[in-house]
Amino acid sequence: MVNLELIKSISRSSPTKIVLLVIDGLGGLPRPETGKTELETASTPNLDKLAAKGVCGLSDPVGPGITPGSAPGHLALFGYDPVSFNIGRGALEAMGIDFDLQPGDAAARGNFCTVDKADLITDRRAGRISTEKCDELCQLLDGLLIENVKIFVQPVREHRFVAVFRGGDLSPDVSDSDPQQLGVTPKVITALSPEADRMAGIANQFVAQAKTTLSEHLPANMVLLRGFSKQPHFPTMGEIYKLRPAAIASYPMYRGLARLVGMKVLETGTSIEDEFKTLIQNYARYDLFFLHIKGTDSAGEDGDFDRKVKVIEQVDKALAELMSLQPEVIVVTSDHSTPALLRGHSWHPVPVLLYSRWCRPDRVSEFSESACISGGLGRFPATQIMSLAMANALKLTKFGA
Amino acid sequence: MVNLELIKSISRSSPTKIVLLVIDGLGGLPRPETGKTELETASTPNLDKLAAKGVCGLSDPVGPGITPGSAPGHLALFGYDPVSFNIGRGALEAMGIDFDLQPGDAAARGNFCTVDKADLITDRRAGRISTEKCDELCQLLDGLLIENVKIFVQPVREHRFVAVFRGGDLSPDVSDSDPQQLGVTPKVITALSPEADRMAGIANQFVAQAKTTLSEHLPANMVLLRGFSKQPHFPTMGEIYKLRPAAIASYPMYRGLARLVGMKVLETGTSIEDEFKTLIQNYARYDLFFLHIKGTDSAGEDGDFDRKVKVIEQVDKALAELMSLQPEVIVVTSDHSTPALLRGHSWHPVPVLLYSRWCRPDRVSEFSESACISGGLGRFPATQIMSLAMANALKLTKFGA
Repeated sequence: MVNLELIKSISRSSPTKIVLLVIDGLGGLPRPETGKTELETASTPNLDKLAAKGVCGLSDPVGPGITPGSAPGHLALFGYDPVSFNIGRGALEAMGIDFDLQPGDAAARGNFCTVDKADLITDRRAGRISTEKCDELCQLLDGLLIENVKIFVQPVREHRFVAVFRGGDLSPDVSDSDPQQLGVTPKVITALSPEADRMAGIANQFVAQAKTTLSEHLPANMVLLRGFSKQPHFPTMGEIYKLRPAAIASYPMYRGLARLVGMKVLETGTSIEDEFKTLIQNYARYDLFFLHIKGTDSAGEDGDFDRKVKVIEQVDKALAELMSLQPEVIVVTSDHSTPALLRGHSWHPVPVLLYSRWCRPDRVSEFSESACISGGLGRFPATQIMSLAMANALKLTKFGA
Repeated sequence: MVNLELIKSISRSSPTKIVLLVIDGLGGLPRPETGKTELETASTPNLDKLAAKGVCGLSDPVGPGITPGSAPGHLALFGYDPVSFNIGRGALEAMGIDFDLQPGDAAARGNFCTVDKADLITDRRAGRISTEKCDELCQLLDGLLIENVKIFVQPVREHRFVAVFRGGDLSPDVSDSDPQQLGVTPKVITALSPEADRMAGIANQFVAQAKTTLSEHLPANMVLLRGFSKQPHFPTMGEIYKLRPAAIASYPMYRGLARLVGMKVLETGTSIEDEFKTLIQNYARYDLFFLHIKGTDSAGEDGDFDRKVKVIEQVDKALAELMSLQPEVIVVTSDHSTPALLRGHSWHPVPVLLYSRWCRPDRVSEFSESACISGGLGRFPATQIMSLAMANALKLTKFGA
């Protein structure tokens, strides 16, 4: 089993460049009328050119049959086994809004919810209040100070928020207040180990104060907390691969994930063209570029087949200028499939294209799910993509004499 | 995860025969002018015939993206996980010159080097002295006796030698004297655990004596030692597979590796024809034959595409007589790729051909990298090759009731 320690022991710094283009949710399912997926429907002359010169395959981000969330999907692409490198729910939500978690902070995922007069939960999502309403309510709670612990309360979307507890080294080893069922009262948060007593006490005080503050704000008259956790400490991509990695992503979650693995997060705009421009402007300063395209996943989630096709075509067009820079390795792939027909992430394997001067080309001449089946990379775990990219960039020395 | 314990529990002895033909560095990259690799360029009617009747695939000796050294590449072919079955540097060098390491021996890799008047290292390789010169200098040091420990000093190539310390059970748990940098003095060898005190003391005395002996032999006026290690103790192929394995290899490193896993190393000549003749002469006496072809790897390392093609064609020709003996299983593969275009070992997956009466044939009708992509074996770790060969030789019983 190839692991990060092995890669670390043979990686070396070199001037060659790797571009990891992640088209979020790229993999799809064929539209019954045409028998073609989103990627197969899109006109993608540049991707097809790369596929013809490169080597293709299908990868599983977590494993066959497993539908990955965004975090595991990306961790796998960066070479981290997404099952053993776990991010707690609270820390993940904080990352998702690009909140700068610090060592010692404990973060919890929060829901605004509805309780009745007997304190029994009647709606765990407070009727899915609007994000604007959520923002407003968070402002009422944000900045509370309890026993020298400052509590940041930040909106996520609809009824979701993040609560971050800062002050001293707080242990997140406490139970949830969210019982994840209706008709019962929110649970008292308890310490699961002695060093978490203080955290549990403060969290319960916070919940009590929130209840008072929210009493007149039906349907959002209470909060539920779960998944207390800290920013995990992962070895950085700089340590493992001896790379200077940069991330270009317009959505906060992906910037947070990139920061977690030690990438420099570059300022960029919101369009695909902006992102590619940022890469080109910073080309000389880094040797790994993670470029994240969100629109494909959003379109897939919306069930909008045609919009997903259009986003893929936009990416293909933007690729031309990048190709003219001739990076030594270009990998085009995704963190998971998001078929428009399923309106959500799915377990289907993800098309992968690797182009480099030193790859061994296969007979695949177009970038599509069905063509990738017979690609030279075969079917393989996504955690191996970085090793392959590193090898093709001649950044890995021989293992053993 | 299939492991050696499992295989051991279901293996059985039987009269069927397996030939494991290892064409070192076989995998290649296409020559740009033709789009064909070395194997695809070679005329190989016999290999193609076997491929058509057999089942093909691509294997990774260590893992995707990992370029294997000769030792890990071969251990994987013999079924040993090359990451967990590690061979120390000193022991590996001793093996590489076919030195018969005994239990209790500690071996170190040595360099002749140059030091200035202040004992600072000015050249870690003594200007890469000739192998003849190395031989001459080794003779000056060979056979020293220090505190009843005899020190064997044997030339490897250019500035490289092996020092083997024999006498009592010496612990190799000592630091290197080689600082692996210039402008500093060689380091004093220190024990890394209490039981290695004696080894460290003797090694330092050896270095001191070598310095005196070499004082007039500029540029080779000092030695550097590293990688003290013992012959590792691996379970033998006889124990695991219940085979009587024989090795036919004209290069010492491969004979050493074969001996390490318990193969009988047969005397043979240096040509491909000699090696095949040795196999045929010994056919009745063993049931696994590891036949190693070195010329393909050497040609690849030299960047000589055409010579590599010729060696492959020679092997193909020699195969005819072997095929007429009708061994139950023939596996043709390699320990790693050595594309002439890269002039060295590479990470590219290795073509595998398995022929037996009981294999399930695929549609592959020629033995080549691109044809193997769509072979029935798929893409798989090289450590599984032996299990497949054993199964096809009907030497593995059912697992579980």
